[in-house]
Amino acid sequence: MCFAMKRLGSTVLTLFVIWHTCDSGNVLVYPIEGSHWINMKILIEALHSKGHSITVLQSDKSWYIKEDPLFYETITLISSFRSGTHDVVYEMVVNMFEDKCLMKKLNESQFDLVLADPGLGAGAILAYYLQIPLVFNVRWTTTGEGHFDIAPSPLSYIPLTGTGFTDKMTFKQRLKNILHYFLTFYQKYVLIKPKYQAICDKYLQPKVDFFELQQAADIWLMRADFVFEFPRPTMPNVVYMGGFQCKPSNPLPQDLEVFVQSSGDHGVIIMSLGASVTQFPPDVAADLSDEIAAAFAELPQKVIWRHTGDKPATLGNNTLLVNWLPQNDLLGHPKVKAFVAHGGTNGVQEALYHGVPVVGLPLFFDQYDNLLRLQQRGAAKILSFETLDKTVFLQALQEVLHDPFYRMNMQRLSRLHKDQPMKPLDQAIFWIEFVMRHKGAAHLRTESYKMPWYAYHSLDVIGFLAFMAFTAVFLTVISIRYLFCRFCLKRKMKYE
Amino acid sequence: MCFAMKRLGSTVLTLFVIWHTCDSGNVLVYPIEGSHWINMKILIEALHSKGHSITVLQSDKSWYIKEDPLFYETITLISSFRSGTHDVVYEMVVNMFEDKCLMKKLNESQFDLVLADPGLGAGAILAYYLQIPLVFNVRWTTTGEGHFDIAPSPLSYIPLTGTGFTDKMTFKQRLKNILHYFLTFYQKYVLIKPKYQAICDKYLQPKVDFFELQQAADIWLMRADFVFEFPRPTMPNVVYMGGFQCKPSNPLPQDLEVFVQSSGDHGVIIMSLGASVTQFPPDVAADLSDEIAAAFAELPQKVIWRHTGDKPATLGNNTLLVNWLPQNDLLGHPKVKAFVAHGGTNGVQEALYHGVPVVGLPLFFDQYDNLLRLQQRGAAKILSFETLDKTVFLQALQEVLHDPFYRMNMQRLSRLHKDQPMKPLDQAIFWIEFVMRHKGAAHLRTESYKMPWYAYHSLDVIGFLAFMAFTAVFLTVISIRYLFCRFCLKRKMKYE
Repeated sequence: MCFAMKRLGSTVLTLFVIWHTCDSGNVLVYPIEGSHWINMKILIEALHSKGHSITVLQSDKSWYIKEDPLFYETITLISSFRSGTHDVVYEMVVNMFEDKCLMKKLNESQFDLVLADPGLGAGAILAYYLQIPLVFNVRWTTTGEGHFDIAPSPLSYIPLTGTGFTDKMTFKQRLKNILHYFLTFYQKYVLIKPKYQAICDKYLQPKVDFFELQQAADIWLMRADFVFEFPRPTMPNVVYMGGFQCKPSNPLPQDLEVFVQSSGDHGVIIMSLGASVTQFPPDVAADLSDEIAAAFAELPQKVIWRHTGDKPATLGNNTLLVNWLPQNDLLGHPKVKAFVAHGGTNGVQEALYHGVPVVGLPLFFDQYDNLLRLQQRGAAKILSFETLDKTVFLQALQEVLHDPFYRMNMQRLSRLHKDQPMKPLDQAIFWIEFVMRHKGAAHLRTESYKMPWYAYHSLDVIGFLAFMAFTAVFLTVISIRYLFCRFCLKRKMKYE
Repeated sequence: MCFAMKRLGSTVLTLFVIWHTCDSGNVLVYPIEGSHWINMKILIEALHSKGHSITVLQSDKSWYIKEDPLFYETITLISSFRSGTHDVVYEMVVNMFEDKCLMKKLNESQFDLVLADPGLGAGAILAYYLQIPLVFNVRWTTTGEGHFDIAPSPLSYIPLTGTGFTDKMTFKQRLKNILHYFLTFYQKYVLIKPKYQAICDKYLQPKVDFFELQQAADIWLMRADFVFEFPRPTMPNVVYMGGFQCKPSNPLPQDLEVFVQSSGDHGVIIMSLGASVTQFPPDVAADLSDEIAAAFAELPQKVIWRHTGDKPATLGNNTLLVNWLPQNDLLGHPKVKAFVAHGGTNGVQEALYHGVPVVGLPLFFDQYDNLLRLQQRGAAKILSFETLDKTVFLQALQEVLHDPFYRMNMQRLSRLHKDQPMKPLDQAIFWIEFVMRHKGAAHLRTESYKMPWYAYHSLDVIGFLAFMAFTAVFLTVISIRYLFCRFCLKRKMKYE
């Protein structure tokens, strides 16, 4: 407790400032590279602005996560390759546990919390080892979409990522969805678990199950919300912070503003295929770029296209090629009428936040599924690279530009998304601080994951009831048969 | 839009006040009597203070719901008996639909929302008839605890109300829990559904299922939270407002304050068995009251006991009998050390809010289960009326008074409960207004309840897969047998 006295005229002003250790927490972060790091950094900066100390674990081969002593301290782990895969994480974590000096430092640092992206498994292992609470910044865990690890997920209306299904499925789709789910078991138990389990077996207490460490996370800060995601069962310790990275737009650089204003009433289309894709795969690049450029050239709109490959031969005067674009500031510009996007989560969320309808060109992973969630709500139109040509692309652009349906729907989603009791980022920070204040959030987390799977699904009870029913039927049949036989025998004896 | 200008020195201060129609909504309320009405009235008063118009539907035999034109308009429905049971509601709703004049009024009133307590089924029917959004103020629906109607509820760790089990059950308890669940089917489909379904069949469109009307509610304002309730799966449209009725205490009336202060360092115990029970059942009243009074008389604490029966013969000087007590103000008083309570939700929530440990004397319905949730967290001790005598009661009181474990745990629950991003009542009002602003909250509600039950549980897919597996095994066996026979036959023929 800090105690200060200040004489103010004849009045003694007494200030009591109560200082809690948890008001300024000590957070250990285990992030993932690429777009995941962009998200994590937003949380780190917000935590830093609230006075918390942050330490980030990174690979010595890291290509995205840079040292930034203004916001966080860095602990570097040794790896043979650039981090990202489970093999590299295995190597990094083993190196970490074998480095006695580093482990001493971690043990002595008195961290209050591990904040981890559970797409890789190291964070959960670290939190258990240090015996401190765990908060996930999550959309994917090591084994798939985050909800599947903690919330009941009826496969009859919850489509698996990659299936391209919605929450309304035909019999055939439901069948495929269930088969797809069983296929993920192979990934989960054969490809993913053994490496992490080996670490648990060697460095943690005996009989610690790696998946249980994940399920023990106190709070799951989910990078989604139900304006974007199909409604589905959830758990009390899941906090939805979808769009937490979105913010009002800033003014554009002057040259870009001049270009945008030159579009007049027609407005502007922007096109970007995300942070890691600035051009198409080499085998289709030239053809596709030509088709797209030719379609753009026929429009009265201006176009800003993030494109680093060869200049398309069919490029029109209305199209500006750029290496990089201020995506959020453009999406928030009133002249921007449509967004041609690959469907990465960040871009989709930004489009939704600013209410700009999307023409989707999904490439891989969850991109089709992300775009599908907008298309289902009438806010996007998805095209396929396989069938893409000038005509198809032009038609889709004109539809999204001129049919008010798309813009109205996207604006409606934007209004719903922004109409929350609390901003998603503030909500995320509240719950991280909550976990530090109360040293966990056990009251929000079921311990059902500790049950054997057959007990969780009541299979032992169902088996017992089935056995009892079978026994009852069996005994009844036997008794009836016995009585019947005796009766027949008696009659037979009587009449003989 | 309202536009105001005010000259302030040389500055023109311009105020823009944007007025939305939905800022002042028109709410139709279908409440339930008794303690449910106490809760609903808090919501109504809060909505009224935000400028919304409220109309309350009540029975002409209502014994709790009074006209109160300051806060709401009243529409009176005719019933033969005091409202409360499903039979009376059936009669009231039929009378309502048959009253052409009243129906014209309801249709013309342009309500924005039905706010209903789903313990009775009329609210859901009205919302469907008027084709307006529906918000539930809920803990129980017509068929049981609210969650069971909309969220997946694995019976392996979610105990049914009335079982007295926790979220950690033995095999035998899980078996009983499942059997108990199947028993509720009788109540649900034989006792409850037919009457409401008859109304749907007669006055709504054909093929409207009553239970689907309930499941279609936009928002479920749940009178619970996970400081009180065991953690369990939930849905995006469930908003937890447990303890929304709780508030800081006001000063006590002077005579009571004097009595309380006279307790010195020993403090005060309060005892109340709820709004509807002020004395024990007649057959045990005298004996029990004597035992309780005798136990109180042995304590150095002062006691305030809400008791209207005969004065117990063993009453001590330290015990004050009252007809009514300001429960919230007493629970918030620093001198109050323990609360002897029957375990009604309101009382339990107030004790939790103020952090006062409880000695529980449950009478019926959910009271044991409510108290069990506190006992599990070490914040209450439950006694049974069957085994209650002076010794048992005195021992329990002394344990709760002197073992710091109880108070510490209850204070911890209180801190957790109060540490929310938003006050529960504000949260409830936000979501009611949200539903009015957006004319529903369809994006938060799954439509899985529209699926046939076998499809929801994927039983058709599982059946198909089992059939395919069976067919595959059968064909394999047939083929092997055929080949084997041919082979045997050939060998036989060869050697013969």
